[in-house]
Amino acid sequence: MTVKEYMRSLGITAKAATAAACRASTAEKNTALQAIANAIRTHSDTIVAANSKDLKRAAAAGLDAASLDRLALKEQTLSDMTCGLEQMVDLPDPVGQMSDPVVRPNGLRISKMRVPIGVIGMIYESRPNVTIDAAGLCLKSGNAVILRGGSESIESNRALYQCIYEGLQESGLDTGIIQLVETIDRQAVGELLKMSEYVDLIIPRGGKSLIQRISDETRIAVLKHLDGVCHVFIDAEADLASAYSIAMNAKTQRYATCNTMETLLVDREVAARVLPDLAHALCGEGVELRVCKETASVLNGVTDYVEATDADWREEYNAPILSIKICAGLEEAIQHIGKYGSNHTDAIVTENAGKADRFLREIDSSSVMVNTSTRFADGFEYGLGAEIGISTDKLHARGPVGLEGLTSQKFIVRGEGQIR
Amino acid sequence: MTVKEYMRSLGITAKAATAAACRASTAEKNTALQAIANAIRTHSDTIVAANSKDLKRAAAAGLDAASLDRLALKEQTLSDMTCGLEQMVDLPDPVGQMSDPVVRPNGLRISKMRVPIGVIGMIYESRPNVTIDAAGLCLKSGNAVILRGGSESIESNRALYQCIYEGLQESGLDTGIIQLVETIDRQAVGELLKMSEYVDLIIPRGGKSLIQRISDETRIAVLKHLDGVCHVFIDAEADLASAYSIAMNAKTQRYATCNTMETLLVDREVAARVLPDLAHALCGEGVELRVCKETASVLNGVTDYVEATDADWREEYNAPILSIKICAGLEEAIQHIGKYGSNHTDAIVTENAGKADRFLREIDSSSVMVNTSTRFADGFEYGLGAEIGISTDKLHARGPVGLEGLTSQKFIVRGEGQIR
Repeated sequence: MTVKEYMRSLGITAKAATAAACRASTAEKNTALQAIANAIRTHSDTIVAANSKDLKRAAAAGLDAASLDRLALKEQTLSDMTCGLEQMVDLPDPVGQMSDPVVRPNGLRISKMRVPIGVIGMIYESRPNVTIDAAGLCLKSGNAVILRGGSESIESNRALYQCIYEGLQESGLDTGIIQLVETIDRQAVGELLKMSEYVDLIIPRGGKSLIQRISDETRIAVLKHLDGVCHVFIDAEADLASAYSIAMNAKTQRYATCNTMETLLVDREVAARVLPDLAHALCGEGVELRVCKETASVLNGVTDYVEATDADWREEYNAPILSIKICAGLEEAIQHIGKYGSNHTDAIVTENAGKADRFLREIDSSSVMVNTSTRFADGFEYGLGAEIGISTDKLHARGPVGLEGLTSQKFIVRGEGQIR
Repeated sequence: MTVKEYMRSLGITAKAATAAACRASTAEKNTALQAIANAIRTHSDTIVAANSKDLKRAAAAGLDAASLDRLALKEQTLSDMTCGLEQMVDLPDPVGQMSDPVVRPNGLRISKMRVPIGVIGMIYESRPNVTIDAAGLCLKSGNAVILRGGSESIESNRALYQCIYEGLQESGLDTGIIQLVETIDRQAVGELLKMSEYVDLIIPRGGKSLIQRISDETRIAVLKHLDGVCHVFIDAEADLASAYSIAMNAKTQRYATCNTMETLLVDREVAARVLPDLAHALCGEGVELRVCKETASVLNGVTDYVEATDADWREEYNAPILSIKICAGLEEAIQHIGKYGSNHTDAIVTENAGKADRFLREIDSSSVMVNTSTRFADGFEYGLGAEIGISTDKLHARGPVGLEGLTSQKFIVRGEGQIR
């Protein structure tokens, strides 16, 4: 069988399984989720052994420490996975949920029913836990899914998929609902991206270049975010103690996440009061500062910075680097974010309710925040239960995407013989 | 200025106008809608004169009667347009609507705010009333729009756009919010489809080939439906009188609309009771019948039919033609619709609530109906106030698309200094 034939066979199987996935009762889906979690516990040794093979091969291939860390399935990661599945059991089933009921003057009763999208193509790198998270979310939302993990994690993914397969079988659900691409041939991704007759939505998770390549290559809808150039704006009317702790948290709690602050904007009026301490503390954490000329002039003794170039304002560092710019006020901050931002997550620190409202309304990002850290932009933190990804696109789903974003709504019309 | 430069200038102007469109208050938008309606009334003679030029040119170019009819702006059409605009004044403003509020254990208050999409590219054929409907809907939903009507209606569209421009000016809104492509050069469409940096969503209205070409050519998101192969299934437990009138209405009330029934499915158990009368009445209306072998055997004296080929089950006739097939029951009907349908609108006629529910859940169409005519699949009929189109895609908006479908939602997070 060629790679093309293999991938098409997965597509045909997935498409055929959509009816079963859509029809599966909440109880059946929950039983399967629990069975998968149990299988992961039962086979944890096998999974860890498979993961060791991946790690050994990856280390030999010279993968960097951060990538190896993402690849590693520690005891904690396994336990997070099973807990994640068990939390999905408790989430309300979106499929079949009715909303927006109206009765028309002619007696027609119209409402919307939430339904699965169909077949999801999930393409991701290194982290093998995505295999379980994505499988669980797609199953609970009534979709079929084709999982395509990175070649570096193929052994781990196979071992995890074995647990998924067992769980589906045990609960009597169609095993075609969740499938893993078992070849590491790179052509498999290209074929998946072409299968618009079988795949309704592609969700890529990974580096920007992977996601950009996927978006450029496919005509299937893609749920994605490319960049997380997140801003915190410290307004002239901010509580400065709060601004300090929010800025520190947004930058230093984790460096490689997409909701980490990359640019700090500060109102001129308070810059000299808040920036020196903040710059000092950031330098203490090892954060490199790239600052505008005016910022440099108020840093008051902090000398450990470089001057920012225009490219810095567009950059997602994913690293201990922060660009800082002083603004004339809210208007300039909004302009700056509109020009350089990536529509991901931006926050204002202010005690002025009017300015907060204006920022919330005018910043065109998937999450807009007042007086809190951009690091909260996350499905779990928002109470969605889990997230399959974050979308910075404006159509369909935006921001952290949970079960609801994996569904669609159709109109349901009930009559008693009405005609036009 | 080349066509490319011209189109890009429209794109730049539209993009620049999005902030004003998004910020415009409900009162400002309503004033503009009313001012446009008033301008249409004031300039009705000019509009009709411009339309006469289009009609004369089109007739000389040999346009068929149906197309000329769609092109014509009669007094009724003008009055429908102004009434449509005045109805939009009364519709609730979607922009800024808040929903799904939650308070997280850490005190963060999270909700969703409805916001405009940005810039809409509207591409349509003949009917000049789309110019006004689309302009009104985009304005009310806070979007900027670039309107590209057919070359055959350019004079009418220019005259109508003059009214739009006047209305925007009078109400003090940025005239860049609504722009008309004033050249009839075909290259303009190609350029519009390439302007992904300025245009967020393309909405094509027109024939299937136009829409298919547009979808194939652009990488911008497209809101569309290609086919309306709508079904009515008469179940064994249908009220046969009701089934008769629903089938007649779904086929004969209008032939060229996308929600017209194209295939009638009938349960074997009642076929001999319902089909002869129905076939007789349909023939009386001049409807050509294309039937399966079994249908032919129960038509009882009606001889005016041809045998259906496999191609008939996939065909959107848009004409007085109907294909008829007898099924073994609900299961076969669902299978048939799944195989041959276009995910637009399908109806079951049955008194059995369980079968109705199964049909509603399992038919994967944008509108699924029980005991009523497919002809009701329409934004006005659903109470959306107006529709910019019907979507048979599953992502973002599905079914008739009104103001809400022209918006997106972003997450709003309010804290009091929370950090992670």
